[in-house]
Amino acid sequence: MSPPYKLAARESQPENTVIRVGECRIGGGEPVVIAGPCAVEDEEMMVKLACRLKRMGVHILRGGAYKPRTSPYSFQGLGEEGLRILARAGGTAGLPVITELLDVRQLPEVCRYADIIQIGSRNMQNFGLLREVGRVKCPVLLKRGLSATLEEWLMAAEYILAGGNRQVILCERGIRSFETYTRNTFDINAVPAIKHLSHLPLMADPSHGTGRRELVLPVSRAALAAGADGLMLEVHPCPEKAVSDGPQSLLPDELAKFMGELRATESCRTRVIA
Amino acid sequence: MSPPYKLAARESQPENTVIRVGECRIGGGEPVVIAGPCAVEDEEMMVKLACRLKRMGVHILRGGAYKPRTSPYSFQGLGEEGLRILARAGGTAGLPVITELLDVRQLPEVCRYADIIQIGSRNMQNFGLLREVGRVKCPVLLKRGLSATLEEWLMAAEYILAGGNRQVILCERGIRSFETYTRNTFDINAVPAIKHLSHLPLMADPSHGTGRRELVLPVSRAALAAGADGLMLEVHPCPEKAVSDGPQSLLPDELAKFMGELRATESCRTRVIA
Amino acid sequence: MSPPYKLAARESQPENTVIRVGECRIGGGEPVVIAGPCAVEDEEMMVKLACRLKRMGVHILRGGAYKPRTSPYSFQGLGEEGLRILARAGGTAGLPVITELLDVRQLPEVCRYADIIQIGSRNMQNFGLLREVGRVKCPVLLKRGLSATLEEWLMAAEYILAGGNRQVILCERGIRSFETYTRNTFDINAVPAIKHLSHLPLMADPSHGTGRRELVLPVSRAALAAGADGLMLEVHPCPEKAVSDGPQSLLPDELAKFMGELRATESCRTRVIA
Amino acid sequence: MSPPYKLAARESQPENTVIRVGECRIGGGEPVVIAGPCAVEDEEMMVKLACRLKRMGVHILRGGAYKPRTSPYSFQGLGEEGLRILARAGGTAGLPVITELLDVRQLPEVCRYADIIQIGSRNMQNFGLLREVGRVKCPVLLKRGLSATLEEWLMAAEYILAGGNRQVILCERGIRSFETYTRNTFDINAVPAIKHLSHLPLMADPSHGTGRRELVLPVSRAALAAGADGLMLEVHPCPEKAVSDGPQSLLPDELAKFMGELRATESCRTRVIA
Repeated sequence: MSPPYKLAARESQPENTVIRVGECRIGGGEPVVIAGPCAVEDEEMMVKLACRLKRMGVHILRGGAYKPRTSPYSFQGLGEEGLRILARAGGTAGLPVITELLDVRQLPEVCRYADIIQIGSRNMQNFGLLREVGRVKCPVLLKRGLSATLEEWLMAAEYILAGGNRQVILCERGIRSFETYTRNTFDINAVPAIKHLSHLPLMADPSHGTGRRELVLPVSRAALAAGADGLMLEVHPCPEKAVSDGPQSLLPDELAKFMGELRATESCRTRVIA
Repeated sequence: MSPPYKLAARESQPENTVIRVGECRIGGGEPVVIAGPCAVEDEEMMVKLACRLKRMGVHILRGGAYKPRTSPYSFQGLGEEGLRILARAGGTAGLPVITELLDVRQLPEVCRYADIIQIGSRNMQNFGLLREVGRVKCPVLLKRGLSATLEEWLMAAEYILAGGNRQVILCERGIRSFETYTRNTFDINAVPAIKHLSHLPLMADPSHGTGRRELVLPVSRAALAAGADGLMLEVHPCPEKAVSDGPQSLLPDELAKFMGELRATESCRTRVIA
Repeated sequence: MSPPYKLAARESQPENTVIRVGECRIGGGEPVVIAGPCAVEDEEMMVKLACRLKRMGVHILRGGAYKPRTSPYSFQGLGEEGLRILARAGGTAGLPVITELLDVRQLPEVCRYADIIQIGSRNMQNFGLLREVGRVKCPVLLKRGLSATLEEWLMAAEYILAGGNRQVILCERGIRSFETYTRNTFDINAVPAIKHLSHLPLMADPSHGTGRRELVLPVSRAALAAGADGLMLEVHPCPEKAVSDGPQSLLPDELAKFMGELRATESCRTRVIA
Repeated sequence: MSPPYKLAARESQPENTVIRVGECRIGGGEPVVIAGPCAVEDEEMMVKLACRLKRMGVHILRGGAYKPRTSPYSFQGLGEEGLRILARAGGTAGLPVITELLDVRQLPEVCRYADIIQIGSRNMQNFGLLREVGRVKCPVLLKRGLSATLEEWLMAAEYILAGGNRQVILCERGIRSFETYTRNTFDINAVPAIKHLSHLPLMADPSHGTGRRELVLPVSRAALAAGADGLMLEVHPCPEKAVSDGPQSLLPDELAKFMGELRATESCRTRVIA
């Protein structure tokens, strides 16, 4: 029986979709690392961090300008000013940038500044938003909903693909389970399952997938070992002062060390496979 | 410790919020019944059904014009034409109408035709949409998200309240659990819990909460017994031909019988309490 | 397609199974109330409470002698001495008693003192235990496992039925979900679903199903309205001093008032149906 | 605040517990692989498979003699005859053996034949069983319950440790979530979390954790990358004829290839870390 997600299905396209962003190829075999703070806070910090990330080998810079927040009283992001800061930091460091789109009305601004548009978990079934990003030429990273099945997730990707935009990147970021020790339950099964069911590239976000700094790197290693095409990581020079997601943000030093380990492992892996 | 949902909290307003819609008072003590098909399909059927519902004592007519569908290839609703049909059917029968708003750009049309705006489960944390309906004068029925905690749900209500719209109705419609026999797990605990935590009226939607016709009326009785202020029920003259949600739609005859039972129970309940 | 639970299925026996315990008939139409403390603590309290419960119309006395506790360092119950106290309290008050069996090796003692053997949630798939209680003549109340599907639960009942013991009572006590406000999520859908799928009587345990005193009675009303054959309630004269489950125990006065309401509602319900 | 699991906590013993079984050291740094069929079926197959597993580098042989089955009508295992076959196969091949204990009454037999006693998911809170295995000298592998939190799991281990048996091995085997594509959701977060919270060795069972053959090896790689001390894998020479768990059983050839990859990766990993 054919799956209901026609364009997203591996059956419809046996070879992997590879998406070029700047100099990197997402889905092209080598793991891609997206990193940055949860929210764009101030320009000086952002530029400095971006340059540091570039030097350690990070491929893409992340940072939220429009933030989906559970409470109307929490910091909601810097808005267009945040987009400008993100783009300047990326430009200075030589890194493409990704940021979240929350509302169809912000599409023009986000398109102006971002190299990849992120659709967050809470909007995975915001069908109006999906249809709009299906009409643009920019790659879209689609996060899995908090309680979305694999099929629902692929159907959400299908909305974008059916609109004509074939540059869809999936991102597993943990599901909601009964476990309370971790913020979410990173669904490692989803990694090989999605690679089996679909030709789309798949990133892993262990920062949201665990919610605890000490678990982020072990789960990052796991995601790559299971076949993920890359990682999306929160990093902050001073997590305890971060306006959001401090407890799950890595320190720049931790990430730098991990990037070194990644290069070494990658060179090993190549030899193991060869 | 004060709850983070300041305006929604029972603490901030000890007496129940009562919302007048047409002749009925939601939260006013007597159970209010909203009924209608999942989607508005054709005018003749809609008018006929509306008149039948009015005669059996239903208070408000429901019907979707913009439908959130998992698949981009499924029927997406009749759009503005659906709104017109719904309003005409309500007008003919003498029933106020409720319909779902999916996208901020449809707010003017929906406001033109609807007496209550519904925010669906998938949009419970579509914060842009919540902010917009926080600025209108129309009552808003806010469904609980598929995997939203009670606190997240009340925080979503807080977005609307904080915008200035105090006419918020909550609606429990089942949560996602491991159980597969039912479409969702109707969270009966949420009924007294929400009435305890908040002054907002609470409706129950056992159609989505169960997904199976034979369970809808028993769970409806349960929700009222637990303290819900009313019910939101899917009814269709010919469920097997419904464009969506057929298996969970009641037949008009079943609903008519239940409305009779409801009146009898209500008169008993009054005597028991008195 | 026939269900895999042959003996438990409604198909195999269209009429309801009715189980006589003392003077009451579980599944016989009138709601049966089982009440008592979580654990048997001391004899004087137990006898006094039992007499009070009898006077207010409770049908069966509950009390744990062997307690399944998450921690090896928590109070594990009084053991056989607890059984003796329970039986004496029941005898003095004129109430049959129910208590939990944890271990096959305690079956002889439990059979000696109890009128109904309870199999707890954690043992729903303790197949050795199920097989043993399938060989005795005593009615067995089988609680649903924390994350058991309806089918798994009915298959567990099937182990007992297949062993020759046809006196099985099911008991819904809440499932584990992502919600943390309540201890468990009482699955109200399960009530009409089980009555539809099986001929076995079904009790509801809103004490464990909610874990919060203020929710116990509203959910009790809901369970009966949905078709449950009775209730199993924790009650304690001094909940803040209870050795376990204090926060979900009703006060005797609350229960007495509820028993009065139940009689009034029941007489109404009879008239509504008639 | 000290954790309630005193003996299991990393705080109480900073260095890892290492458990010797035959020639291997579980928790000693090198990944240990346990493999074999779900159930012991016939002797010839078992001996042949065991020898093949030994040759490919598997460390311990698994096989169920007493099987916990959802249905009373399913194959329940060969019982003591199964234990004898397992022990003979292990003896012939030179492999220690592990098998599941379901019932306290089978403890003497299981102790006679097994090198490690397995406590299955359904019995994680069978406290009588935990107490009994706390008194023996044999290592115990304790699987996580289907919906057990990390704390409940560690508290179950505490029952065994508090009884005097310090040779406890934990085994993550997937939790129950809303996802239906996979049999369970392997909780990769649990791997580094448990290693952080406890000094006990941790095995991973991706066969049950995924329920699908094509996902078993990717999730195995992930578990080791996340820090698991070893793997427990189902393998069957002819999965489509297996009496249980065929769809999740690897073929011997698949496992052999994986064992080779594991040796290569391990030698790389050693160099990366060094």
